[in-house]
Amino acid sequence: MAKVIFVPREGAGEERVAASPETVKRLTAMGFSIVVETGAGTASGILDGDFEAAGARIGSASDAAGADVILKVNRPTSSEISGYRSGAAVFASMDPYGNEAALAEMARAGITAFAMELMPRITRAQSMDVLSSQANLAGYRAVIDAAHQYGRALPMMMTAAGTVPAAKVFVMGAGVAGLQAIATARRLGAVVSATDVRPAAKEQVASLGAKFIAVEDEEFKAAETAGGYAKQMSEAYQAKQAALVADHIAKQDIVITTALIPGRPAPRLVTRSMLASMKAGSVAVDLAVERGGNIEGSVKGSVATVEGVKVIGYANVAGRVAASASALYAKNLFAFLETMVSKETKEFAVNPDDELVKATMLTHGGQVVHPNFAEAAASF
Amino acid sequence: MAKVIFVPREGAGEERVAASPETVKRLTAMGFSIVVETGAGTASGILDGDFEAAGARIGSASDAAGADVILKVNRPTSSEISGYRSGAAVFASMDPYGNEAALAEMARAGITAFAMELMPRITRAQSMDVLSSQANLAGYRAVIDAAHQYGRALPMMMTAAGTVPAAKVFVMGAGVAGLQAIATARRLGAVVSATDVRPAAKEQVASLGAKFIAVEDEEFKAAETAGGYAKQMSEAYQAKQAALVADHIAKQDIVITTALIPGRPAPRLVTRSMLASMKAGSVAVDLAVERGGNIEGSVKGSVATVEGVKVIGYANVAGRVAASASALYAKNLFAFLETMVSKETKEFAVNPDDELVKATMLTHGGQVVHPNFAEAAASF
Repeated sequence: MAKVIFVPREGAGEERVAASPETVKRLTAMGFSIVVETGAGTASGILDGDFEAAGARIGSASDAAGADVILKVNRPTSSEISGYRSGAAVFASMDPYGNEAALAEMARAGITAFAMELMPRITRAQSMDVLSSQANLAGYRAVIDAAHQYGRALPMMMTAAGTVPAAKVFVMGAGVAGLQAIATARRLGAVVSATDVRPAAKEQVASLGAKFIAVEDEEFKAAETAGGYAKQMSEAYQAKQAALVADHIAKQDIVITTALIPGRPAPRLVTRSMLASMKAGSVAVDLAVERGGNIEGSVKGSVATVEGVKVIGYANVAGRVAASASALYAKNLFAFLETMVSKETKEFAVNPDDELVKATMLTHGGQVVHPNFAEAAASF
Repeated sequence: MAKVIFVPREGAGEERVAASPETVKRLTAMGFSIVVETGAGTASGILDGDFEAAGARIGSASDAAGADVILKVNRPTSSEISGYRSGAAVFASMDPYGNEAALAEMARAGITAFAMELMPRITRAQSMDVLSSQANLAGYRAVIDAAHQYGRALPMMMTAAGTVPAAKVFVMGAGVAGLQAIATARRLGAVVSATDVRPAAKEQVASLGAKFIAVEDEEFKAAETAGGYAKQMSEAYQAKQAALVADHIAKQDIVITTALIPGRPAPRLVTRSMLASMKAGSVAVDLAVERGGNIEGSVKGSVATVEGVKVIGYANVAGRVAASASALYAKNLFAFLETMVSKETKEFAVNPDDELVKATMLTHGGQVVHPNFAEAAASF
């Protein structure tokens, strides 16, 4: 009998959905039977009829009980878990760090839960990398949100009444989100600079047409050529770099921070006194606000005015470009699911020896099985 | 004695201000004494201290009574007019059409009122053209507002999880606002098309990298080479063009309308049935909403969902980029004032024979003097 996949409507504040007409079509072709909860795609611009046309049946939340596989954006709530049958495989962004009690609950319910954000960053799994696909859109959206709050135009405009100068945008952290923020701000005509704790990021930043802000002494040059994840810089270097960055921020119109450390609070990059040094009407975007924030005074879910600077602290920024985010997220899930379907037998099966499964499987057979969380979850 | 210029804080909903530190400095150097109402520039990112540093004194609304010249963004209210002395010259966007009662009121108060939007579009007055300076920013902001409402990214993004297609943006009306909307949407990576009732606009649209949407028959080609403000197209042509545009809109993600006719209601360009033909999650921006709207169902001051399309109907769109808009508007006013100060005597005087004064002066010596409004105002 065909395995049943259920795609629920996510909870309040989440406009994304874990399937798209494209992935429904491909999963159906692979032999799955798909049920999508009514309205699940509406906020992402996907109507029930679009899912039906792709081969899904439109159902309700109670259809979760009959599903072998559940595709979700966010970790299921207690109430959702209670509607799943034991043995179901649930794929989601599980946000596992610090949420060990919730993992224990999924284990007790007999669910096999996969945390998509733990996907290893290896070539084979690139197409399943939800952190990258969503961070890319968050970086884009950070610039749109900043332009929306900023009282000036970003591009230089030469008009008969005089010239509007280009905005100065500074991006802190040159990972996937930071690089897309740089690219988007450049598209809009801003003068863009960026920094990163990895001297090797200089080349990528420069390739996007932005200026890399760093104290380029001998230590920096040695680290730069070492490449990749370089060794920790000396304390003396860090102090010099901090002074340079503080001085640079005072001259910026827009600052976008993107620094996250998996499983740890976000590093504090911008202090109140740095905000106070900026011109009236400046804007800052804190993409790490859900992890404690890179910017002092940022408030999760809103725009706070701190020392005269509008500090944007929207949560779930990729979800603010929900239609694109859903399309890519759904493809990430599809790519992972595809590895679990045998090319010969067409059967769906979880192979516990696969490195992708090892890296992402949190719970199985009633236990929290992931080594990073098993111990902490045992106390719940 | 130095002539006194007063710059008030504008009313609620208006973030712009009619002077900038730059124009205050230059007006002071020309011999004027400037008083700025406290807080007048705050929403445009100009603090009282910035105006003071440029040479202004910070005052209150009551300082209007001692002013020879008043610089404003919007036409003064009755309450403001009652605070002006007879003989004062007031420069503003007066929005005179249909507001003849307000003009009569200014005349009775003995004010010499200048409507900046009536500035002739001649080379000499280009630097005083508030319609162009503000429309340019409105065109930019229309795209930022659309991107902010749109659930997808505008640029094409090629990612490991698949490609996000570029958004399709259609701009209706290729005047100053339309051309800047085209340029901004192109910057953001959208696939842009545009149309205009003037076939001659095709070249400008194409030069910005957008596709011109028109039935290019013999009649079109004749009109195109005739250039400038061409003759009215035939009814048969208009019908063919309307069908082409309706078909084109159905394939767009974002439609931006910018069609205004001075002193007349805005033409209806987009009907409900055209909106209904667009995909779920599409966005439309009606820059003519204050003049009755180009889009059926648009609501002034808000985002309405019409036939599944988010229709953005923000009023005063240039004021949504207040800091840039104020800087350019202030320069427009400065350029006009400068023509009224004698190079020899340094005296400020209105020359009724100057063509710029003739075109813009609404009221003087207790009368509505502008030929377009004198008759209608006489009945108030």
